[in-house]
Amino acid sequence: MENSETAAETSAQPSTDHSTALLQQLGQLLGEGGVRTQPDAVMPDVILRPRTTAEVSAVLRLCSAAGQALVPLGGRTGLANGHFQTQGEFGLSLERMNAIEEIDTENRTMTVQAGCILQVAVEAAEEHDLLLPMDFGARGSATVGSVVATNAGGNRVIRYGMAREVVLGLEVVLADGTVVTSLNKMLKNNTGYDIKQWFIGAEGTLGVVTRVVLRLRPSPRSQCTALLAVDSFGALTSLLRMLDARTAGTLSGFEVMWPEFYSYVTREGSLHRPPLPHGSAFYVLVETLGSEPESDAERFETVLGEAMEEGLVSDAVLARSQSERNALWEIRDDVLEFFKLGPIIPFDISVTLDRMEQFVDDIRVGMDTLKDGVCVVFGHLGDSNLHLILGSKKPEEFDYQALCTLLYETVERHHGSVSAEHGIGLSKREQLGRSRSAPELQLMRQLKTMLDPKNILNPNKIFAADTLTAG
Amino acid sequence: MENSETAAETSAQPSTDHSTALLQQLGQLLGEGGVRTQPDAVMPDVILRPRTTAEVSAVLRLCSAAGQALVPLGGRTGLANGHFQTQGEFGLSLERMNAIEEIDTENRTMTVQAGCILQVAVEAAEEHDLLLPMDFGARGSATVGSVVATNAGGNRVIRYGMAREVVLGLEVVLADGTVVTSLNKMLKNNTGYDIKQWFIGAEGTLGVVTRVVLRLRPSPRSQCTALLAVDSFGALTSLLRMLDARTAGTLSGFEVMWPEFYSYVTREGSLHRPPLPHGSAFYVLVETLGSEPESDAERFETVLGEAMEEGLVSDAVLARSQSERNALWEIRDDVLEFFKLGPIIPFDISVTLDRMEQFVDDIRVGMDTLKDGVCVVFGHLGDSNLHLILGSKKPEEFDYQALCTLLYETVERHHGSVSAEHGIGLSKREQLGRSRSAPELQLMRQLKTMLDPKNILNPNKIFAADTLTAG
Repeated sequence: MENSETAAETSAQPSTDHSTALLQQLGQLLGEGGVRTQPDAVMPDVILRPRTTAEVSAVLRLCSAAGQALVPLGGRTGLANGHFQTQGEFGLSLERMNAIEEIDTENRTMTVQAGCILQVAVEAAEEHDLLLPMDFGARGSATVGSVVATNAGGNRVIRYGMAREVVLGLEVVLADGTVVTSLNKMLKNNTGYDIKQWFIGAEGTLGVVTRVVLRLRPSPRSQCTALLAVDSFGALTSLLRMLDARTAGTLSGFEVMWPEFYSYVTREGSLHRPPLPHGSAFYVLVETLGSEPESDAERFETVLGEAMEEGLVSDAVLARSQSERNALWEIRDDVLEFFKLGPIIPFDISVTLDRMEQFVDDIRVGMDTLKDGVCVVFGHLGDSNLHLILGSKKPEEFDYQALCTLLYETVERHHGSVSAEHGIGLSKREQLGRSRSAPELQLMRQLKTMLDPKNILNPNKIFAADTLTAG
Repeated sequence: MENSETAAETSAQPSTDHSTALLQQLGQLLGEGGVRTQPDAVMPDVILRPRTTAEVSAVLRLCSAAGQALVPLGGRTGLANGHFQTQGEFGLSLERMNAIEEIDTENRTMTVQAGCILQVAVEAAEEHDLLLPMDFGARGSATVGSVVATNAGGNRVIRYGMAREVVLGLEVVLADGTVVTSLNKMLKNNTGYDIKQWFIGAEGTLGVVTRVVLRLRPSPRSQCTALLAVDSFGALTSLLRMLDARTAGTLSGFEVMWPEFYSYVTREGSLHRPPLPHGSAFYVLVETLGSEPESDAERFETVLGEAMEEGLVSDAVLARSQSERNALWEIRDDVLEFFKLGPIIPFDISVTLDRMEQFVDDIRVGMDTLKDGVCVVFGHLGDSNLHLILGSKKPEEFDYQALCTLLYETVERHHGSVSAEHGIGLSKREQLGRSRSAPELQLMRQLKTMLDPKNILNPNKIFAADTLTAG
């Protein structure tokens, strides 16, 4: 839907003759299956598929010399169009670099090539009774490299942090082909600047991540899950604080659904039976991951009982089995259902808890002025992260720009973040200045220009090419 | 002891006339008490003491124009000489910027000026029943700014992470005086590059941190502490894994003392009674911070009982009161005692757990060749972080260079880190290449040159001035 944003800014590309010569060189370098060309308008026309870090390095050297733009590709399910290929840009897929190189049970680390699918890595850790805690909807398509490149968040950030907190080391290939191998396995390592931080969340604009060392945790032995009804936003934040304090270190989920979300997903004729009746102000899916199944369950119920006595929770249902737990999560995860309502936009933002209620009210007021508007709110409240689905039940009333303006102006007014966990990519590029000041943006551009002076790595993502100072 | 390292490299300083004019300007700018000059050889001769971020910015603008080097000063208790002032360098102390600007109980953040003493900030959080989890020996002298600048670690990293994990936002003044205000309070904020990461752990070489937003946690309601005797390194790592898995999310300390540490600190005539008899291979201080005092204590004892049954623990003593707990920690914290043994060097390194036993053996073998050597080992095993005290009982036998060579060559051979939590400063600068590759160092130097082209910010720390590529 954002393709229009890029229509006017096809990067300066080498001429066709040069491209042909470059493609021949790349073909020789990468061997059979190494270069895929798909000469149709919908799919990108060239995808390079190196098998080793050395090949990635050689690809970047050649492309750098030729001024050829590259778009690093992961699962291509990101929601900010960070993986979008403009005409003439080559895709760089690491799908043939998908090995799990090592699971080190002694040091509790996993060393994995960037093309490995997240779910494959998670399951490999599970086989050693270890937890790779990154988890979100696209787990079956996202690659570890793209998880790192977007600093992905998800469902367990409140307990284990974002991707940044899970990455101990990485290997990255710079725009000029330089390989920087920084595969640290140690929790503490204060030897100069922590350069891996530069590349985490940089959306492939500063380098191509080729290998990653991830921190693994002991597998949880208990999981307690409940769906709660809550009557007010004040009760919601008190409940969050109470659970955080009373389930020390184990609270892993605090997923809030505003009533429109819950009542629509569990409406009559939907796939889900409502575990709690409609009509409450908020529904919260809470979960702990602990170590002692019996006593953890007892504690969980005790704390929830106290929360009810204190009036923080008005109704509750506890999952008594894995299938009941799955049923609760399926309600929370059934976001695709809202695409049935009409044309919609899924937004991903942060605002601090003290402003969140007013923020949502302001959005609602704005949406009220639209006829047949769709406004659905849910999110990871413990991380100050909301998702909003805004749209229209009538396609002819749908106004992409108006919805973006409403949403992002309100975020800016509440000093929020225009991207909590999805990144900037192309989709939010023009909004970045709402959350970052001119000096912050200037520093970012300086680093981009320093590391990729020819702007060949994912050009026009995060920053439009013409806003970079040097070339 | 490392002063010799800097004798040959006094940075190019402005002539005396220029310095006098600059000092006059700075004096006018900073007002009464703003410039301290102490014309003796021991203390640094000029210390600037701004009161606001605007004053820091003005100081940097003036010094940048004059090419005047500045050394940002915190508590000046760092162990890597990152705060060392060479002749002609001005100190920049933020001791007059020590306000706690806000404790936000709703969002659980603290906004604090960089000159605030860590312990003051910790106690201010406690007054709101919140925990600022950073804790280490120098808590009474270290400033929040220096904690951030060194990415400090300490005693609870296994549970709460390094300073990096506690910092949500910061404000930094660049070498040219540009103020970059990035006081984020949100847990998730993926809006472009996470520039705060560049300055955390940069030891004041990239900018002067002026304000910080810290993440606060609920205060723990239970604390379980025990001292355990363990017979082998294999049992030690198994115990760590077992406790990590069985005390889900609450394990906050796993502090190992090798026998020389324990037996010396608790020797006859020392301040400490030995809670467990001498003669074991290892002593471990373990601690959990939880939420339910009674049942946490029960769990803790159960798990330790099982560890004894499994043969992982040979003897144990549990703290039954706060004074007993204090007595156990005082043994672990009594590092100064070793200075009585003779001239010693306190080292701070990381090695992965699978190599740690061999690493210590290799150091011991090296020390055996020295007459009257001192070799004491302890550390935060859960963070792969060891501290080693190497020295000599006879001053005339003490060989600083030989001890450094033994230690750092052994670290390099085991792919360890020459600095776990103390930083590089001056003391470890020549060792940095043992833990970082040429491409990593090249990236670091590029960032330094980009942000501080005149090399006025803490020059010669981390990198010698003459190794920076541009000027």
